[in-house]
Amino acid sequence: MSKRLRIVDIIACKKEGKEHSEEEINFLVKGVKNKTIPDYQISAWLMAVNIKGMTKKESAILTRAIAMSGEILDLSAIGEYIVDKHSTGGVGDKTTIILIPLLAAAGMPVAKLSGRGLGHTGGTIDKLESIPGFNTSLNIDDFINTVKAHKCAIASQTNNLAPVDGTLYALRDATATVASIPLIASSIVSKKIASGANVIVLDVKCGNGAFMKSIDDARSLSQTMVDIGKYLNKSIVSVITGMEQPLGNAVGNNLEIIESIETLKNKGPKDLTELCLYLGAISLVKANKAATIREGKFFLAKLLKNGKAFEQFKLFVKNQGGDVSYIDNPDKFPSSKYKLELKASNSGFIKEINALEVGKLCKILGAGRETKEDSIDHSVGIVLNKKIGYKVKPGDLIATIHANAEEEGQATLELLGQAVAYSDIQITAPELIIDTIGH
Amino acid sequence: MSKRLRIVDIIACKKEGKEHSEEEINFLVKGVKNKTIPDYQISAWLMAVNIKGMTKKESAILTRAIAMSGEILDLSAIGEYIVDKHSTGGVGDKTTIILIPLLAAAGMPVAKLSGRGLGHTGGTIDKLESIPGFNTSLNIDDFINTVKAHKCAIASQTNNLAPVDGTLYALRDATATVASIPLIASSIVSKKIASGANVIVLDVKCGNGAFMKSIDDARSLSQTMVDIGKYLNKSIVSVITGMEQPLGNAVGNNLEIIESIETLKNKGPKDLTELCLYLGAISLVKANKAATIREGKFFLAKLLKNGKAFEQFKLFVKNQGGDVSYIDNPDKFPSSKYKLELKASNSGFIKEINALEVGKLCKILGAGRETKEDSIDHSVGIVLNKKIGYKVKPGDLIATIHANAEEEGQATLELLGQAVAYSDIQITAPELIIDTIGH
Repeated sequence: MSKRLRIVDIIACKKEGKEHSEEEINFLVKGVKNKTIPDYQISAWLMAVNIKGMTKKESAILTRAIAMSGEILDLSAIGEYIVDKHSTGGVGDKTTIILIPLLAAAGMPVAKLSGRGLGHTGGTIDKLESIPGFNTSLNIDDFINTVKAHKCAIASQTNNLAPVDGTLYALRDATATVASIPLIASSIVSKKIASGANVIVLDVKCGNGAFMKSIDDARSLSQTMVDIGKYLNKSIVSVITGMEQPLGNAVGNNLEIIESIETLKNKGPKDLTELCLYLGAISLVKANKAATIREGKFFLAKLLKNGKAFEQFKLFVKNQGGDVSYIDNPDKFPSSKYKLELKASNSGFIKEINALEVGKLCKILGAGRETKEDSIDHSVGIVLNKKIGYKVKPGDLIATIHANAEEEGQATLELLGQAVAYSDIQITAPELIIDTIGH
Repeated sequence: MSKRLRIVDIIACKKEGKEHSEEEINFLVKGVKNKTIPDYQISAWLMAVNIKGMTKKESAILTRAIAMSGEILDLSAIGEYIVDKHSTGGVGDKTTIILIPLLAAAGMPVAKLSGRGLGHTGGTIDKLESIPGFNTSLNIDDFINTVKAHKCAIASQTNNLAPVDGTLYALRDATATVASIPLIASSIVSKKIASGANVIVLDVKCGNGAFMKSIDDARSLSQTMVDIGKYLNKSIVSVITGMEQPLGNAVGNNLEIIESIETLKNKGPKDLTELCLYLGAISLVKANKAATIREGKFFLAKLLKNGKAFEQFKLFVKNQGGDVSYIDNPDKFPSSKYKLELKASNSGFIKEINALEVGKLCKILGAGRETKEDSIDHSVGIVLNKKIGYKVKPGDLIATIHANAEEEGQATLELLGQAVAYSDIQITAPELIIDTIGH
């Protein structure tokens, strides 16, 4: 029998930069779950972890303990491989909305659990809810049955899955301990494990508009998550993708749904289409449904061209209670009251469209929320007409601002102008797919 | 007007190892005081401070802010110089009990505020309360008037002084963040500043029986406190003294009072007498009442010899409601039921009497408390007959254990034997006064 564990000793261990035993981590997670450890002790531990770090082994044990703190969905009835995809959050990132029907059309079951957006990056569920009637409050049985019958479904994350993650995240948010790679990794992967998928595709965004600002951090987070997967016997692949400028052209809830529809009809922006094909192809390879990424991409591109991905999207929307007439006729989506046009001030090449600034401006317009209680305006946002590397002359349309308050629109117009920079010399577009780890 | 402060940014600042502004520290301390900052944010900050440290300037600002969080006693009516003395806590440390009357007999006002003991080191107030009737619950007016009329008084610390220190200390205790030099320094000095003295003599114990185990830590804490004093215009001197073995011979409440009486009659142990004279002389020099430490010691030694210090002690006890007949006749103090003698097992020289072990054993016997609610047994403890460096032969009396439960006494006898080590070669006594900082 080992000695009695005390939380204050566990905190001291991490403060001194030592490695926790499996017993210590399980004791801590259990104490968080049962509320026998007060918040002030948890937060002191979180700060020690943030500063001193964790080994791969500790991160994996923590991930498993958090996953096991609640229900673990059993999706084995659906099929051999079930994909879940997660993005660390970017501006204009609607890849999940496109990938769900695209992979389903390829015969790959997708069981997606998702949270709501907070901060300058939007949430997938918020975006989908701009389709009238779209409902993500499925119970587990309905969720599983829908995936079984129609290959895909999305549900909002319930508190039954990895409940300790919620407690830890709220404390991290309040104590400046969000930016810890082992804590981010265990938070993401524990939820994916609890959600029952066995092919986990992670899109780690990197750049000013992402949570990971540097390639080094993005690589370190990716490697940590892939290693956790190995330790816990889950197939995890992490793709590092650029987030210096928004992904695609549209930022804002129904604006991104409209762009997703275009993309599913094979008429979407090149960067967005390319990323969806790549992430989709990786999933197919991981699930043994394609031999190579090239083959996977070719197969998926065909589904965009022949309308099957779009048909699957309509089925998906219908299954979730959404009004499919909006998908057939996107003009039905409510449009913002004001449209303000940002014109090029210089001639030359666009060298910067700061994604973080665009994200923040959209939040101010009402597209995002500051706190969980805020409501969302589905029609506001920014649609880019040019991207980095494009040649422009003064007066060319750079972007259209969709606003429902004139003053906010005007302020956004001015600030968006400051987020765009020009160059006299030719600029190449920033790399979109930077690295793939765990493939 | 500066930007709005947010606690999460203040935590992040310290997490990144940056220096706080004065405004940030004041904001934080005010938030702790008003309870507008939740404990989990305070403890994350405490952990960041513990790991990343604080500059001298930050420590001084924090100290002042904590002192200002409550009442600041105004002792100016008493005289130009008022001494307060603080020890970081050691085993058998009764210097305060001797210094109060000794300095008062030398004409130096001593206004001493004191806390109760916790852990393996006893508290001055607990020891004094073994004198029947001795009362330390003075209100501020009585406290000041007694010092004015009779040169000295002691009062138990009220919650009005530096109240934020109490909140921070409780959180540090629960979050493994006690061992932070800036936090220890600000805790000690803030209370001394609030208590109104202007000559502050600090005895930083160093060794296995002390909180500071290494000379480097003791020196760093001393320097930090002296520097805080300079920044805040207070005369602070810090004496680093050895705590490898207990100070003097007696450990335990009334046993230490009896030894204090002996010392005040100039019949006390050499090490204890020497330390009291040194700390007293430093105080006299700091208050311009002696030109040199040597002169101060000579003057104070006379007061031990001519009975004036002892007379002052009786007056002090009487003023505080204590029964002076116990001081005149220490045999009146209740004696423990059992006396167990530890005899030397080897011949040679004593090379170790582990102070930490002696302190812990006395606590088990009932002389100290584990939690604030525990009561204290005034008659139990350990009295040493030999100290490090003494030559012994098998069967020589090393120590007497004073116990009120036979089983505990027997267990203590065995464990105390293990806390004593012998050497074949001659051993010199460990250094008592290791360094003086701020003199």
